[in-house]
Amino acid sequence: MLRVQDRAVHQCDSGWVPVFVGQDRAVALMSIGFLLERPDDAVVWRGPKKNALIKQFVTDVAWGDLDFLIVDTPPGTSDEHISTVEALRPHRLLGAILVTTPQAVSVGDVRRELTFCKKTGLRVLGVVENMSGFVCPHCSGSGIHDSLLFFLLQECTNIFSKGGGEELAKHAGVPFLGCVPLDPQLSQSLEEGRDFIQEFPKSSAFPALAHIAQQILDTSQQSS
Amino acid sequence: MLRVQDRAVHQCDSGWVPVFVGQDRAVALMSIGFLLERPDDAVVWRGPKKNALIKQFVTDVAWGDLDFLIVDTPPGTSDEHISTVEALRPHRLLGAILVTTPQAVSVGDVRRELTFCKKTGLRVLGVVENMSGFVCPHCSGSGIHDSLLFFLLQECTNIFSKGGGEELAKHAGVPFLGCVPLDPQLSQSLEEGRDFIQEFPKSSAFPALAHIAQQILDTSQQSS
Repeated sequence: MLRVQDRAVHQCDSGWVPVFVGQDRAVALMSIGFLLERPDDAVVWRGPKKNALIKQFVTDVAWGDLDFLIVDTPPGTSDEHISTVEALRPHRLLGAILVTTPQAVSVGDVRRELTFCKKTGLRVLGVVENMSGFVCPHCSGSGIHDSLLFFLLQECTNIFSKGGGEELAKHAGVPFLGCVPLDPQLSQSLEEGRDFIQEFPKSSAFPALAHIAQQILDTSQQSS
Repeated sequence: MLRVQDRAVHQCDSGWVPVFVGQDRAVALMSIGFLLERPDDAVVWRGPKKNALIKQFVTDVAWGDLDFLIVDTPPGTSDEHISTVEALRPHRLLGAILVTTPQAVSVGDVRRELTFCKKTGLRVLGVVENMSGFVCPHCSGSGIHDSLLFFLLQECTNIFSKGGGEELAKHAGVPFLGCVPLDPQLSQSLEEGRDFIQEFPKSSAFPALAHIAQQILDTSQQSS
C-alpha cells in the first residue's frame, strides 16, 4: 500500500530505525514484514514470541517525536490485543477505534471487542463502518439518455447489510465516526500504492475518510 | 448465519454434544460462542487457553460419524493454526483450503499461509478467491429499454482487483477452485439465516459455490 515492501530495518544506537514513507518522511512504519528474509515467509509463532515482539516494537524502535502512534491489530481479543494494551499502558493512550463491516456477524465480533475495551479500561474513540454500500460506477457515470437513466442514478447497493456500525455505536454509547463505502478507486490506490488523497479527491470514499479523520483529531485535541 | 446463536452445548457420556442444524440434523457445530454466558462476552485468552480448547473441540466433542470436519480458522499462521494441525494430525487429514480476496495485500497473507502448509506438511486442496467482482443488480435487472441497456448488462465492477487468487494458485502449483462474486443475495441469506441454496438458485454466487464444492468432493473421493 505504501510502496515500502522491499525496505529493510536498520539498527542505530537508540534501537531499530523504522521505515519512513514519502519525501517528507511524515510516516514511520514498523512491521514484522520488514524483518523477514523473504516476503512469503510464514511467521509460525505462538503467543509468547508475538507478545515479545509487540513489546519490542513499542520500546526498542527509535520512533522519535510522534504525533500519533497507530497500531493496526487483527480482529479478536487475544495475545496481540492484550500485549498491545499492556505495552502502551505506560504512555498517554488515547484510545481504540473499532472498525466493523455492516454485517451482523462482523458487528458481533466488534461487540466483543467493546467488552474487551471495557475490561481493560481502554477508552473507545468510536466505531467506523467499513465496506458500507457500493455506488455502481456503471449506473452513475453515463453516456446515455439522462431521463431514462434518472432512476438508476446514485443507486447504492448494500452488498452487505447497512447500519450495523451505527447501531452498535448507539447501543454501546460511543461515538459513531462514519461509514467508508466500497470504492474501487480507493481499492485501486491501495493495490497500486498510489496516493489516494492526491489522485481521487472526488471519490466517494474521500469525504468519508476526511470526516472520520477530523473527528479523531478533534477528540485528541480535546484530550490534550 | 445458521440461526443457532441461542443454543447451548450439553454434556453426555461421550463428551460435549455439538449443536445440530436443521430438521435433518445434517450439520453439527461447535463454537466457543455456545459456551459463553452472554453473546457479547469477550474471550480475552492468550494462546495456551485457546490451544487447550481447540484440542478439546477435536477430542472431547461427541462428533459421531462425520463425512467431513471443517475447521474455519482466523487469518494467520499462529496458535490456532498450529494447534488445529497438531490436534488433527492423528486423523485422516484431507488438507487445507486457502481463501483469499483479490487484493495484493490479502494474497500476500495467503502466500504466507501456503508456506505454513508446506512447513507443517499439510496438503493444499486449493485456493478460493472470495469477494471477487460485483455484478450490479441495478444495471442488470431492468424495466427499461433493452437495446439502450445492452451495454450496461452484465457490467461487472471489480471493486477490488481481480485474478489474485488464480495467480497465487498458479504460482504455488496448487489447484484454483474458483471465484465467489460479491453477491447481495448471499450476504442477505447469511445475515438473516436463510437457506441460500433453496432460495436463490439463480444468484450469481450459486454456481460458483456449487463448482467449488464439487471439486472438493471429487478430491476427497480420489483420496479415499
